[in-house]
Order: sequence, then C-alpha cells, then structure tokens
Amino acid sequence: MKLKTAILGVTGYVGQQLLSLLVRHPNVDLRLLTSEKFSGKRADEAFPHLSGYADLSLVSVSKISYSQPLDIVFSCLPGGTSSVFVRKFLEEGVRVIDLSPDLRFSDPDDYSRAHGAAPRFPELLSRAVYGLSELNREKIKDASLVANAGCYSTCVSLGMAPFLRTHDTEDDVIVDIKSSYSTSGRAPKPESHYTEVKEDVSARGAGGDDQKHEILRVLSDFFGVEKNLLFFNTRVPVKRGIMATSYLKLRSKVSPDEIKELYTRFYEEDVFVRVCDGPPGMASVSGSNYISLGFCEREGHLVVVSVLDNLMKGAAGQAVQNMNIVFGFPEDEGLGQVPLFP
Amino acid sequence: MKLKTAILGVTGYVGQQLLSLLVRHPNVDLRLLTSEKFSGKRADEAFPHLSGYADLSLVSVSKISYSQPLDIVFSCLPGGTSSVFVRKFLEEGVRVIDLSPDLRFSDPDDYSRAHGAAPRFPELLSRAVYGLSELNREKIKDASLVANAGCYSTCVSLGMAPFLRTHDTEDDVIVDIKSSYSTSGRAPKPESHYTEVKEDVSARGAGGDDQKHEILRVLSDFFGVEKNLLFFNTRVPVKRGIMATSYLKLRSKVSPDEIKELYTRFYEEDVFVRVCDGPPGMASVSGSNYISLGFCEREGHLVVVSVLDNLMKGAAGQAVQNMNIVFGFPEDEGLGQVPLFP
Amino acid sequence: MKLKTAILGVTGYVGQQLLSLLVRHPNVDLRLLTSEKFSGKRADEAFPHLSGYADLSLVSVSKISYSQPLDIVFSCLPGGTSSVFVRKFLEEGVRVIDLSPDLRFSDPDDYSRAHGAAPRFPELLSRAVYGLSELNREKIKDASLVANAGCYSTCVSLGMAPFLRTHDTEDDVIVDIKSSYSTSGRAPKPESHYTEVKEDVSARGAGGDDQKHEILRVLSDFFGVEKNLLFFNTRVPVKRGIMATSYLKLRSKVSPDEIKELYTRFYEEDVFVRVCDGPPGMASVSGSNYISLGFCEREGHLVVVSVLDNLMKGAAGQAVQNMNIVFGFPEDEGLGQVPLFP
Amino acid sequence: MKLKTAILGVTGYVGQQLLSLLVRHPNVDLRLLTSEKFSGKRADEAFPHLSGYADLSLVSVSKISYSQPLDIVFSCLPGGTSSVFVRKFLEEGVRVIDLSPDLRFSDPDDYSRAHGAAPRFPELLSRAVYGLSELNREKIKDASLVANAGCYSTCVSLGMAPFLRTHDTEDDVIVDIKSSYSTSGRAPKPESHYTEVKEDVSARGAGGDDQKHEILRVLSDFFGVEKNLLFFNTRVPVKRGIMATSYLKLRSKVSPDEIKELYTRFYEEDVFVRVCDGPPGMASVSGSNYISLGFCEREGHLVVVSVLDNLMKGAAGQAVQNMNIVFGFPEDEGLGQVPLFP
Repeated sequence: MKLKTAILGVTGYVGQQLLSLLVRHPNVDLRLLTSEKFSGKRADEAFPHLSGYADLSLVSVSKISYSQPLDIVFSCLPGGTSSVFVRKFLEEGVRVIDLSPDLRFSDPDDYSRAHGAAPRFPELLSRAVYGLSELNREKIKDASLVANAGCYSTCVSLGMAPFLRTHDTEDDVIVDIKSSYSTSGRAPKPESHYTEVKEDVSARGAGGDDQKHEILRVLSDFFGVEKNLLFFNTRVPVKRGIMATSYLKLRSKVSPDEIKELYTRFYEEDVFVRVCDGPPGMASVSGSNYISLGFCEREGHLVVVSVLDNLMKGAAGQAVQNMNIVFGFPEDEGLGQVPLFP
Repeated sequence: MKLKTAILGVTGYVGQQLLSLLVRHPNVDLRLLTSEKFSGKRADEAFPHLSGYADLSLVSVSKISYSQPLDIVFSCLPGGTSSVFVRKFLEEGVRVIDLSPDLRFSDPDDYSRAHGAAPRFPELLSRAVYGLSELNREKIKDASLVANAGCYSTCVSLGMAPFLRTHDTEDDVIVDIKSSYSTSGRAPKPESHYTEVKEDVSARGAGGDDQKHEILRVLSDFFGVEKNLLFFNTRVPVKRGIMATSYLKLRSKVSPDEIKELYTRFYEEDVFVRVCDGPPGMASVSGSNYISLGFCEREGHLVVVSVLDNLMKGAAGQAVQNMNIVFGFPEDEGLGQVPLFP
Repeated sequence: MKLKTAILGVTGYVGQQLLSLLVRHPNVDLRLLTSEKFSGKRADEAFPHLSGYADLSLVSVSKISYSQPLDIVFSCLPGGTSSVFVRKFLEEGVRVIDLSPDLRFSDPDDYSRAHGAAPRFPELLSRAVYGLSELNREKIKDASLVANAGCYSTCVSLGMAPFLRTHDTEDDVIVDIKSSYSTSGRAPKPESHYTEVKEDVSARGAGGDDQKHEILRVLSDFFGVEKNLLFFNTRVPVKRGIMATSYLKLRSKVSPDEIKELYTRFYEEDVFVRVCDGPPGMASVSGSNYISLGFCEREGHLVVVSVLDNLMKGAAGQAVQNMNIVFGFPEDEGLGQVPLFP
Repeated sequence: MKLKTAILGVTGYVGQQLLSLLVRHPNVDLRLLTSEKFSGKRADEAFPHLSGYADLSLVSVSKISYSQPLDIVFSCLPGGTSSVFVRKFLEEGVRVIDLSPDLRFSDPDDYSRAHGAAPRFPELLSRAVYGLSELNREKIKDASLVANAGCYSTCVSLGMAPFLRTHDTEDDVIVDIKSSYSTSGRAPKPESHYTEVKEDVSARGAGGDDQKHEILRVLSDFFGVEKNLLFFNTRVPVKRGIMATSYLKLRSKVSPDEIKELYTRFYEEDVFVRVCDGPPGMASVSGSNYISLGFCEREGHLVVVSVLDNLMKGAAGQAVQNMNIVFGFPEDEGLGQVPLFP
C-alpha cells in the first residue's frame, strides 16, 4: 500500500528532512510539495542533494487544489499559518500530521498561555491527538489529526517520564537546554551568522519558551503531575541536536541501578529510545530517530540528560513514526538511519 | 541470497562506516568482525551508536578461524598488515575486497615508488582488480579480489576522466586537495587535537602522497595518458569530505556547455556521479555515496572541482558498491543514503 | 622596575597563554622558562607563534638552579607536582603565584575532600593567599604566595557573590557549566579528537568536580554561607571559554533592575567585571581578561549567566592581575587585550 | 603626539578590528566614528566588547562636519561610496587611509578591468599611494592618501615577491585561495548561515576576483613581470584567515635552502613577515598582524603557502602599519598582538 502524500512547506529544515525521509519510505507516494521560495521549480533542482529522488514540481501553498485524492498531508508550515491549511484538508477528509506548534494543546487557555494569543481555530485543538509517539501511541493509531510533539517537549518529556510516573519529587524542575542552530531555522539572521557564532555559546536567539507550556501539558495530561518548570535554553555551535539536562530534587534516595532498571523497563517496547550507562552526547544520535537517555544522582537530585536530533526525533522523524503508527506500518519503517559516526 | 560476510578491522572510521552500511544491507549476513581494541566486547557495546544492530562478539584478527564458511571478506586493516590476511582468505577461496592501500598497483615497481618499499606479496598485485567502480565495472564483476580505490584517487580520477579521454592538455596537472580530519584516522594525535585545529587550515599532517602514484596509474591504465602530477593536500576543519581542485592547462578552447555535455554523457549510467552546474560544495555529498563534479574555464585552464565523502564513496561506500557489482546486485543496494542536509 | 620572572611549565595552554602575556608586560623580564617536552629548544622555536618574542632556552624543571636571583615565579605545573617546586622557591625567598590546584584550600580537610587525598605539604596551605583578585585584593597585596583561583570557581563565585552577600536564598544551588576544550589541556586524547567531537556536546571528559569544593570554600570564607551545590559540567565545541549558568532559588522577589544595580555597585571598582543587560555569550570575552555577568528572574529563581575565557581570567590573565596587585602595578597592566571580535 | 583621528564605517568587521586597534594605540585620539546602523548610539553600547574603551557617539557619515580639525581619516566604507568621502577629506587637507577597493589602481583602465566599471574619481587614482607596507614603504612615508592593499593581494604578493624578483618562472601562475567567512562581511546571507556552512567547504560566495587584477598590478609595478594569473577562491569554515597556495612553474631547479635564504634576506627588515620552515597554518597568525610564508618544491614547481589574518595584516592591521609609516612612528606601534594560541 502506497499512501498518496503531500508535504506543505518543504523549504525549511524540517520540511527538507521530512522530504529526505519520505522519498525513500516504501509506503509513500509523494504527490504534492509546496514551497513559497522555490515554487515553479522542480524539487530536485531546488534541492540538489535530492537530485534523482524528487522530480515533482513545487507549488505555492496558496495555489494548491484540494480536489486531488490524498491519503495524508504533513504540514511544516509556520505556526499561525499551518492550522489554516490543516483545517481545509481535514474538511476534505484527509488525515493530517501537523509539525507546527499550532495544535499542541487541547485546552485553548493553555495555548494562549504558551503563545500569548488565542488559537485561531479552537475547535481544532480538541480534535488533535498529541503526537509524542512513545507516550500516546494508542491514541495516535488511526487518528485523523496528529499534532506532532515539539522538539524540546519530546526531549524533556521522554527524559522525565519514567521517573515522574513512579517517584515523588519536589515541585521545582530546572531544565537547562543546549540547542543547535538548526532549531532556529533556515532564514539568515545576525544570530546565526557564521563568523560571529562559530566560537560562541549564548542564550541570544535561543527561544523555545512556548514549549515550557507544552512540557507542562505533558506532565499534567500523561502523569497527573504539576511542576514549577524553569526552562532555560542556550545555543551551542553544532548543526543538529538538542540536549536537555533536567534537574529534579528527590524526596527520597534512589540508586543509579534502580533508575536504569526503571527506564529500561519503561521503554522496553520503544525501538527509538536508548537507555545509556552515563550521560549521552549529542552526536550519538545525530542523523537518526533515536533519543538517548542517561542519568546520575548528585546532591540529592536526579540529573537526567536526554539528547535527540531536533530534525529527526524532534520533528520529521517523529512525524514519520507517527504516520507509521496511524496506518499500522512497522513503527520504524523508513527510519532505519543509524547515527552518523563520526 | 544473503552473503556470509566478514569485516577485518572494524574499529577505525572506515571500518565503522562499513559496519553501519552492512548491518542494513539486505544481502549481507555478518558473521565475523575483528577489532584489536575492542576484542571480547560485543559490537553494539563497543559502538553504542549501533546498539540494536550488531550483536556479534568482536575478535582479534590474530585469533580468527579460517574454516568457517564465508562468501566475502572486507579488509579495513592497515596497510602492510592487510595483505597478510587477504592472502589467507583468498587461499580459502573466499572473495576479498581490500580497503587498504596494499594492492592498488598491478606493477610492483609502481607500488615501490608510491610506498617507498617493495610489496610484501607481489603475486597478489596482479590478481587484484582495481576497485574504482565507474571506471572498472566490467573487471570488477565476479572478481575474486578487489583493491578498493583510494579516496583521493577516486575523487581526482573521476573528476578528470571524461576530459582526459577526449581532450589534449598540457603535461602539468596541479591538484589542490582540501581534506577533512576523518581522512587521518581515529587515533588521537596533536595534529587532530580539537583545541588546536578547530580554527586552523594547514598542510600539517595531511598526507596522501602515495595516492599521487595511484592517480598516475589510473591515468595511464585507463586513459593511456602520462602526466606530470603535482599533488598538494591541505587539511580543512570539517569531519568528513574531500574536495579536489584540479587545474589542467588546455591546448584548445572549450566551452562550459560542451564540458557539461561531455561529463553528463560520460556518466549517464553512473547513479553515484552528479554533474553540477557550478563547483559543488563538500557538504552536498556528506553522508552519501555520491561524487559531485563541477568545472569552469579560467585563464586557459579547465578547473575541475570534485567532492566526495571520504568514508563513503572514498572508502566504505565504494566497497559496498564493488561488492554489489561482484555479486550482480543492483549497484546502489544498501547505498540509498541521501546527503545529510543541513 | 622590571621583575626577574620565571614560568614553570610553559608547554601547556595555560603556560602558553601566560608566556604570551608576560613577553609583552612592561614590568617583566623573563629569566627562566621550563618545559619537559621542549627542554633544550629555544622558546621561540618551540612556540613559533612567539617568534621574535622569546629567545630564552627552555629547561627541564628538574634541572633548574635555585641560586639565580628571581623576583617572582609562576607555576603552571600539574597538580601534585607544582607544590614541590613552589615550596623550594618560597624557601629561597621568591614570591610565587601557583596556577595549579595544589594550594587553593586553607583547610587540609577541604583539600582532601576535593582531591580525594591529603595535601602533600599541608603547611603551605595556610601560607597561600587565595588568588581571586576581585574578592581578595587586600590580602593579595604583598603576598608571598598566591594560589591562583580555578577557572570554574572564578566564573561561578564572581557570578554569585553580590547576590549571596545581600540576599537570602534556598540551600540548593545548581550550577550548569558549559566548558570549552582548552579546559582539558593540550595532550591529545579520544575525547578531544577533532573528528569525533566537532559536532558533539557531551559531559564525557568534562571534569572540574574538585572545583565544586573550591566554590564552597569561597562561599563560606568570603560570604559566610553554606550551600548544597550541584555542579554539572558539559563540554561544548569551542576552543576557549566557560559559561556558568547558576540557578538560585529566591526566598523573596527581586526585580531585574534591583539586581543590576546591586551588581554594578558591587563591581564598580573592578575593571575586569562587566555587568550586562542580558545573559552574555562566551565569545564576548574571548581573548580578554574580562568576566561578563548577566541575569534574569524565572519561576522564582535568579538565573546568573557568567562567562570568561578560561585561559585568561580563568588562569593566566588572573595570574598576571594578581602579580600586578602583589607588586602595586596598575591592575590592568599588560592585560589590555580587548575581546576578539569577530 | 596624538593624532586626531576619524574612522568612517566602523560597523563592519574591518571597521570593528580597526577600532579595537586604535582605542589602544598610544598616538591616536579618536574624534569621529561613523556608523549607519548604529548612528545615535554610543560606540561602547553598540559594540559591547569595547565597553570602557570608546565613549564617542556614532554618527551617520552623511551628517559629519568637515570643519573639525582632524589629522587622519580611515575609511572602511564600501567600495563605490568610500571615494566620495575620501575626496572631501583630502580637499580639507586631511590625510586619508582608504581601506576600500576604490583606489588600488593608478591606471583607470586597470580599475575598469577589475571592477567592470570606470572609477568615479579617476583623478584620485594617481594621487593614491598603494598601501602594501613591505613593498612600498618609501612612498607611503608622508603620503597624503594611502590605498590600503587588499587582503588577497597582500597575501599573494608578499608570498611571491622575493621569488619573482630574482627567478624566472613560466607565465602561468595558479593561486588557490582558502578564505575564511569574515572575508565576506557582517551582513547575514544564506551562504554564511551557520547551519549550512559549518561542515561545508565551497567556492559558493567566495569572491575576490577583482583582486586578481590588483595582484597583477603589483607584479607589474613592483617587479616588472607580467603573468597569466589563475585565481580560484574556496571558502573554508574558519572565522578569520586567508591561505594562498601559489604554484609557480620553475625554469630551473632551486633548492629549498636557497629559497629560504632568499626570503629571509628579502624580509630581514620586515617585522611582520615570518619565513617558516614548512607550509604555515592559518591559525599561526590569527589575531596578529603577521604574514607567514613557507614553500616547497614539487614536480618542477615552487609551491608558496602564505597565511595572514584578513582583518589584521589583510586590512585593519596593515592600515595601522601604514599610518605608523606615514607619521614616522615605530612600524609596529599598537600592533604587538601575538597570535592567539590556542
């Protein structure tokens, strides 16, 4: 079975990564690709690294026809714009996986808190299934609308999940993020200008604060816990990757062995989660859909280090994983890329 | 059909890349992996990025048994050592692809000129088929011993081949190489110490001069031309990749269109060769088995810019390509990795 | 007045930085340089970037004569070794600035806790004045022995000092460090091998845990506070620099303006401390003796971001600053390097 | 003596480097700084790394008054614009050092060939003294207008000068340039976007072809030789630096010793030229005003490798050096920065 598939917004890094994955997915037949910047060009001309893989013409999203038969649409459009098109495809009865931040809250108030403005289509929020594959697999199966989880939320939530489900911790949770430059997109700007940032490590231009609320939603919805979450993001000079160092204050002592056992069991069915012996490095998952987790106990705190590739498990890779779940394909179909080493 | 396969010397970067490719190759069944550094460990413990992919135990190459049935052996052992083991497996009737520089010359004198010492097993030289897939495909088919082409030779030879076959140029050919740090291996040394080289560009530690002779051999054997080749290698701060900028002095004017047409036609059957409109960048092939070629005409010279990933098309990728040719598999089987972007 | 000056251990990065500063210091006359690796060579041959600046011959520290007249000795020898030589020069009546971690505690028990072993010369501990210039200036004046403060301790202590002196905070203090590769020295090792670390961010190989105790000592000795300090260090791919992100839980609300005012006043006489409007980036101080401090208030915590160049304010620069204080030179003599931009 | 000094165009990287040098030059009293982007701000607010060093207000170049007394004006304005202002200051009797490419040819035809358009003020060309300090020192002394040499021209010309003056070579000269990202300025653009270029080496966006003609002018004016110069520029992922690898075909054999002797003697009075034993690396001069030269003989060619910091010896550093020459200060006044190591 080949799904007739569209990608909206294929120009940016997430769109590019998704396209790279879908051109080789055995169950996907790409029918529609939109790009504002390259509309009119052929995909393999606009994106020379895909030469030989994508001979479709790129069209502007404002010019697409909704009448062509499609099985699934991925939207990599920017927040605010994405839901407009998601809505139209849903009305046509097409399943949608939305990679934008538009639909990651079921409660409009939570959305407003995160984004500082009310959602454009509040009725869509309740229809969207939150697309964090490992935590919400059952609801994703056969969903018509998946709101793909954010990169920071995936990294932090999967890192804390097993522990928060089973152990009591103090209210304060401090999450110190180290994020790569691909998290801030493809548009050139001073804070991503090579000469100035190559030897820099800085909080300048590192956003993601809206995902604090997304993480809070996960903690509340999936684990029933309310925490006081401090989210602080620092940009580091790498291309791909996110590391979340989470500090949770313990209410009682736990041994490292006990924690490893807990995590290993919690994720034993999850092919993309790797539980490590020590804190993993960002490069250990680069180019792959894996998330790696390690931990240690220090000064009465559990320190969880979680790393993922923000364009893969943090975005396009998880979107493909969610599609696989929706349609009942093997969860790792088209996602067999091993981390690039070296 | 699954080939019972061995890799000798899996610790270094080439061995690691080869292992990453073969664990996912549909026609390969890995039976034997050797590593001096990690012997006794399981492969997926020694190489955590392959966790879940390789549950074989690593053994020392000095302890292997030659009696187990194997269809093919890849040797990533160091030059000098490799041919010792290649010889033994050939005696057992096992096909071998040797990635070391040991067997890349058919003439012992050429070998001596390149390496400054006589070959250890001169009789092996004449048995080895030179493994530059695009230029020697017919001889590689069904070969029992393939001497995988070197990274610099592949990059330079494929870049100059179409032109030298059809056009007359002056004797002097200047090849200015820019090479990444993975070309100098996995062993830590001062000239690859992060702090000192991160902002450096330097000829220090950049070798590859033996491949000058390998290129001369290709020019002579495949094109019947003898050139005065100046090979100069500069290290640039990237992980993966080689760029060769080749300067050939023209004896008569040619137009860029004519050259592009020439190259496009020459490589029209070659899935891994990309002919570009301008000089390609190193990143455009990173992580893939492609070689990209571009050219311009300046001051009476043809300037050819060729780029490849030294661990893929420059080593392990081409080795897999050669295996595919030997056994009649589709040439790109297991080599569908698109270049990593960004 | 020109001080007859020696540097012990000039080979490593700290020694190199110190030498680069002292060859141009107007009050310094270099008389003795030791190096184990390059003994017998001339300094400007061993260190070509200093060609024209240092025509002394390098000697092994085991072969030095203690009879030559010296005014000051800087020791950049490794921990454990340094105090042996420091002691000898003190006996000769020469002033010493020790950049090793040997003498940074006045209490032998504190030393043992930090280093896991008893100090070799406990009697030296009480003689050593802790060389964190801004906090201990009065005692450094005319000191015969200065234990130059560690890079992490300087970065963290100066970042928290003004606040801890004036405000009450909860006991737990979390310090998330991002450190550059020059903090781990000049000897090549796998965890600083270019190819593997260039795209990595990892806790692997990032030490500095002994400085947790050094920071605790500063908090206790200079501010009379005892904290539960969690120190976690992550390596980031830059050459020079340390960033400390410190999380302090507030007991009462403070406004950002109030904090900035507090810090500005606290450091108003300190030429090398810059109080910023937002969190500073690591590059903003690179190559200079500055430490930059910024802060924000989040979720009931004060977040302090402090950055310095570990080889300058974190080591050699502060050593020169301490020498200037000891001898009554202007505190910034020889330290006028502005941060390198870009 | 303190020169009343202006810098026009202080925003870009060259202007920034020049400002960093002049704030600390003992003979300079900064009176006027122009910036279009930051006009109205104080310099030390716009450029925080210079906090404490530059309390002047920045003004737009369109609003400056020509009546204030000035001794020297440096122009870092863009090509095309610069000469407009240079002319006005000259009319006021102020000496000018122009760092733009506007006035680097004495012959208007040469200018037109390099820039593809006629010069705006041809009469200025003949007044301008070419500011390549080592080759034109005598004319620079007391000059009223200096056209600071370009970065590529300085790097290539000083590398070839001694040899071309004394030896006969074939007409073809191939210059393979490796250039850093700061050569392409401070404005963000896709070809300097961190995520895409960090692992790339590419000719994309690397210009400098106008300097081919500048080099030809130097060869002709200073050495009386006419060459067929092939200039090819490749961008490498470093912040600062240029390496020129020049290939000259010998008409007769020369020994390396002979060449080293020749270069050493030629530059024996030149404090900023370092003659090395082997090909120097780019980092060996980073942050300093040095140019380092090394060479080898291969296949009948002399290979000259020359490296400099494009913002220092390639621009602002040489401008200060030229000012020192004009006013009879020691040539290295204010230029004592040793290369940053590591």
